[in-house]
Amino acid sequence: MKLASRRAGRDGALLVVSRDLMMAVAAGDIAPTMQAALDEWDAVAPELGKLYERLTAGTAAGAFRLENASLDAPLPRAWQWLDGSAFAQHAALMAKAFSRPPIETDGPLMYQGMSHRFLGPEDVVAFPREEDGIDFEGEFAVITGDVRMGADRKAGGAAIRLVGLVNDWSLRRLTAVEVKTGFGWVRAKPACSAAPVLVTPDELGAAWKDFRLQASLEVRRGDELFGRVPADEMEYGFDELVAHAATTRDLCAGTIIGSGTVSSSRYADVGSCCISERQAIEMIAKGGARTPYLSFGERVRMEAFAQGGTHSLFGATHNSVVRSAPPPER
Amino acid sequence: MKLASRRAGRDGALLVVSRDLMMAVAAGDIAPTMQAALDEWDAVAPELGKLYERLTAGTAAGAFRLENASLDAPLPRAWQWLDGSAFAQHAALMAKAFSRPPIETDGPLMYQGMSHRFLGPEDVVAFPREEDGIDFEGEFAVITGDVRMGADRKAGGAAIRLVGLVNDWSLRRLTAVEVKTGFGWVRAKPACSAAPVLVTPDELGAAWKDFRLQASLEVRRGDELFGRVPADEMEYGFDELVAHAATTRDLCAGTIIGSGTVSSSRYADVGSCCISERQAIEMIAKGGARTPYLSFGERVRMEAFAQGGTHSLFGATHNSVVRSAPPPER
Repeated sequence: MKLASRRAGRDGALLVVSRDLMMAVAAGDIAPTMQAALDEWDAVAPELGKLYERLTAGTAAGAFRLENASLDAPLPRAWQWLDGSAFAQHAALMAKAFSRPPIETDGPLMYQGMSHRFLGPEDVVAFPREEDGIDFEGEFAVITGDVRMGADRKAGGAAIRLVGLVNDWSLRRLTAVEVKTGFGWVRAKPACSAAPVLVTPDELGAAWKDFRLQASLEVRRGDELFGRVPADEMEYGFDELVAHAATTRDLCAGTIIGSGTVSSSRYADVGSCCISERQAIEMIAKGGARTPYLSFGERVRMEAFAQGGTHSLFGATHNSVVRSAPPPER
Repeated sequence: MKLASRRAGRDGALLVVSRDLMMAVAAGDIAPTMQAALDEWDAVAPELGKLYERLTAGTAAGAFRLENASLDAPLPRAWQWLDGSAFAQHAALMAKAFSRPPIETDGPLMYQGMSHRFLGPEDVVAFPREEDGIDFEGEFAVITGDVRMGADRKAGGAAIRLVGLVNDWSLRRLTAVEVKTGFGWVRAKPACSAAPVLVTPDELGAAWKDFRLQASLEVRRGDELFGRVPADEMEYGFDELVAHAATTRDLCAGTIIGSGTVSSSRYADVGSCCISERQAIEMIAKGGARTPYLSFGERVRMEAFAQGGTHSLFGATHNSVVRSAPPPER
């Protein structure tokens, strides 16, 4: 089934969305919010599934046409966002461009990011300064149920409730400063945007295999097709990322785990999912970065399609980048 | 005033605590939970303050003797935990012991940590393996109201609602692995413990100056006094830490900002607030670390006292360390 959240307070109001993403229906009688549904998943998922089938069949009372502009992020705030870096090709390009040794690690790379606000698919995204190097990062993410500390890969995979698409906005000049401290990113990684719908793994069919998406992520910067990148080179599956995250902590229902920027060794043909990777490719090929970071007023669109298909898996993010208003004088 | 949370569900039930920390009274009629109080602070703080005065005067109906064992962390789960490293002395000792250059940074060091579970003051704390190098870290923390992106130091200071004490449990052998990746800590930093009460800055009186605590943090490992460390060498005030955290993001009410391990240049006299700092001192003085990390069954106690006084500011954490149970077979 497919779920979304209409704008309503800090947690949104739960919607069920039809298979073709055209129609929606309020699911508040079953669970008021996405987080509430995740907290009581085993009890509510069957009821949500029945409503989904009725909606898709055209027999759900109160169905209405889905408008992305009315949507918040499907999980507008989450208790935990752990973002991996599971596409080794991306890390290899970055290391080569900057003549750095590969990052030493004994497992997946992962950082804890801001989770108290995820932006809606058509929200305006505000940053203080263009000079910080505003970039997008297209990636996939899963939402888990409760996971016990020490869970193995099998338990990690079984805990995946929903799958979605995230644009992990990044400020590259701050990324470079913060990564050197070893402390990870705070200033460099503000709120992410999320695509309209989250989808259960069973609903993805052939587009979900070995806990990886068999899908291409299409990224547009304004009118330019920036990338249409197949996600089949993911080094660690989401089952492994969940288990890694749970090594020394319990995960709560509603934990979001990200794949990191989708990247392909066929980058010359398929492009990239972030500006910084394209800059790295330019540095390697041409001796210098040519593609600029985003300016205020630019728009970025992301949408994922099952491999070889035209079926939109999660709907599209389509965000404008603007300068943030200064805080009010006290 | 002083606030705590009785164990009740995932968010606890709000209590007001008397000035001497001996008595408590349920505050559910004013706000059900600490997070709810923080969300509506301007409306509820005056009411909570009146109840606090009645409780301290011995005239509050329903007052009962405070038992730490009945308490959860004062904010049992939070949307955001950003932990600084504002005691330069600690960083200097670590760099010297490991012959590393100082960390390059243009502001306070800060990472985003696990916030969906803070453990209560007397909770048992479970870890999977002693070999991960189980350590404690005594530090102070503030809880903020809503803060707008770009807030300056003045606005940062004005947003501080409550002050408290945190034991930031750390797994040192994993810290060393993860810091090298630049991604910060996920496996190395599981759930923290928190002292029983949070206190408003005005209540701290002379123990709160320039957005720093004028207090000593007493740490006991079993029967051994491990440190009684004055916190007056904090390089950045909490006003600066809040402003740093808000450089490129809004902070939500209930954001927790930590000072990092309390540390003093008079360490030879006052000791340390974590094992790893004492090991660093031993490496510098004696050529090798002698103090072992924690074993299962050990107990750690932390309590803060106003400088030169015997008045407990936040009550004590007193946690046993145990081996975590393996997750259930599926």
